[in-house]
Amino acid sequence: MPLVSHGRYGRDMDVKGVLLDLSGVLYVGDEPVPGASKALDRLRDSGLPIRYLTNTTRRTRAAVHASLASMGFEIDEGDIFTAPSAVRAHLRTAGLRPWLLIHPALEPEFADVETQDPNAVVIGDAGDGFTYHALNEAFRLLMDGAPLLAMGDNRFFREADGLSLDIGPFVKALEFAAGVDALVLGKPAAGMFLGAVEELGCSPEEAIMVGDDVASDVEGAVAAGMQALLVRTGKFQAGDDDRIAEIETAGVVDDLAAAVERILGSIERVP
Amino acid sequence: MPLVSHGRYGRDMDVKGVLLDLSGVLYVGDEPVPGASKALDRLRDSGLPIRYLTNTTRRTRAAVHASLASMGFEIDEGDIFTAPSAVRAHLRTAGLRPWLLIHPALEPEFADVETQDPNAVVIGDAGDGFTYHALNEAFRLLMDGAPLLAMGDNRFFREADGLSLDIGPFVKALEFAAGVDALVLGKPAAGMFLGAVEELGCSPEEAIMVGDDVASDVEGAVAAGMQALLVRTGKFQAGDDDRIAEIETAGVVDDLAAAVERILGSIERVP
Repeated sequence: MPLVSHGRYGRDMDVKGVLLDLSGVLYVGDEPVPGASKALDRLRDSGLPIRYLTNTTRRTRAAVHASLASMGFEIDEGDIFTAPSAVRAHLRTAGLRPWLLIHPALEPEFADVETQDPNAVVIGDAGDGFTYHALNEAFRLLMDGAPLLAMGDNRFFREADGLSLDIGPFVKALEFAAGVDALVLGKPAAGMFLGAVEELGCSPEEAIMVGDDVASDVEGAVAAGMQALLVRTGKFQAGDDDRIAEIETAGVVDDLAAAVERILGSIERVP
Repeated sequence: MPLVSHGRYGRDMDVKGVLLDLSGVLYVGDEPVPGASKALDRLRDSGLPIRYLTNTTRRTRAAVHASLASMGFEIDEGDIFTAPSAVRAHLRTAGLRPWLLIHPALEPEFADVETQDPNAVVIGDAGDGFTYHALNEAFRLLMDGAPLLAMGDNRFFREADGLSLDIGPFVKALEFAAGVDALVLGKPAAGMFLGAVEELGCSPEEAIMVGDDVASDVEGAVAAGMQALLVRTGKFQAGDDDRIAEIETAGVVDDLAAAVERILGSIERVP
């Protein structure tokens, strides 16, 4: 499979850890991408540390893990890094106790987190949990100086019966009410990538992100100081190549197999 | 009582209709402003058309009227112009059928409005009515092209047990989600003043607003093309004089009695 190279990138890669997007890279819909499972095995055998990065804010890591397993991907649950994982990491580092405005399905992810006497607001896509009372409680904490940690800032998503409000509108509501700026910890925010890179044990410059979304995956990772590869599977669109060509530390490849080939090739060239 | 004049304003007033703010002008808290009732009688006897302008979004005009009557102010309920009145006027003019996201106490105000097959979203401070489901319904209508009519855009207000979210945050949420701009129809938005001026039957330039809030009442009215007087009762603060001095068509007076004196004096000078 030919590797596509853009600009200088590809000749001087230096990779010590890999972040993989899930949807569109390992699978599309419910179907594994052809060759992805084998490519993933090859990448794991190389010994490079890997984290699996997803923005899901309504599923626990256990649920994501079970879904991947059902498609034949054998990975460690602890290697899955979600927006909630990034929030957990930030809470731990900053010594914060959250007031949780999140989806009920996500509550197990925070079961062991201290929430007494909260001094931070964590907002996910709480769905029906977005009541006036709950938003007001969050607002009052923000007015008392609690930081606002958001698992994303998307405007809406598609449900079976139509479009529905995502996290973003509620983040905007609380930001406007309390006169604060949220710390967004989902892709494409830097906090999401940096939290996962910390687990890889290398610097952002030594880590590479592989994803199918030019804005959320590639541009987000590059803005966080990482290298990145865009795959032509998933939500790849015509014209994405041109955007990638502008970026010194990013390239485009056909699929995960090609990405792994390129990453391992770069390592093998290191003396 | 001496009249304070700023700049050129006051020597060339031309008033054919009057808008009066309620709280801070007619009363402060539950107490009538001394002399306000008598001054109001004098203004009404002059024959100038009057509308009473209030931003309340949780009380019907009937409730506002009853409260004024209990303090000794005898006015016609039909002369009270609230943010909901402005919304009603706009719906009528534009031929719109609203989907109502408002406080239950306000529902009687819209009892006779056609709401089948809605093609507009009206948002007030719905309080507990701000559920995820209701906001989603509003969002979907906006995505179908319905305009967003807001009764205000304040950030928060004070309740007995603390600060609470006002309309503004929910307006911002829907604006961000649907990528639209709301038409705000409460003070200080021009739509509120112009709706009331239309009932006065004169042009904005011929109408004068009397209020105690330099931003919401005076600057808002002037931006809508009106003249304005700031009273030193209610929420008047040191420094407000300086802001008024910058405005060619606004002045400052001690209270409603002084405002009426000045307005009627200007009329009597007209040949």
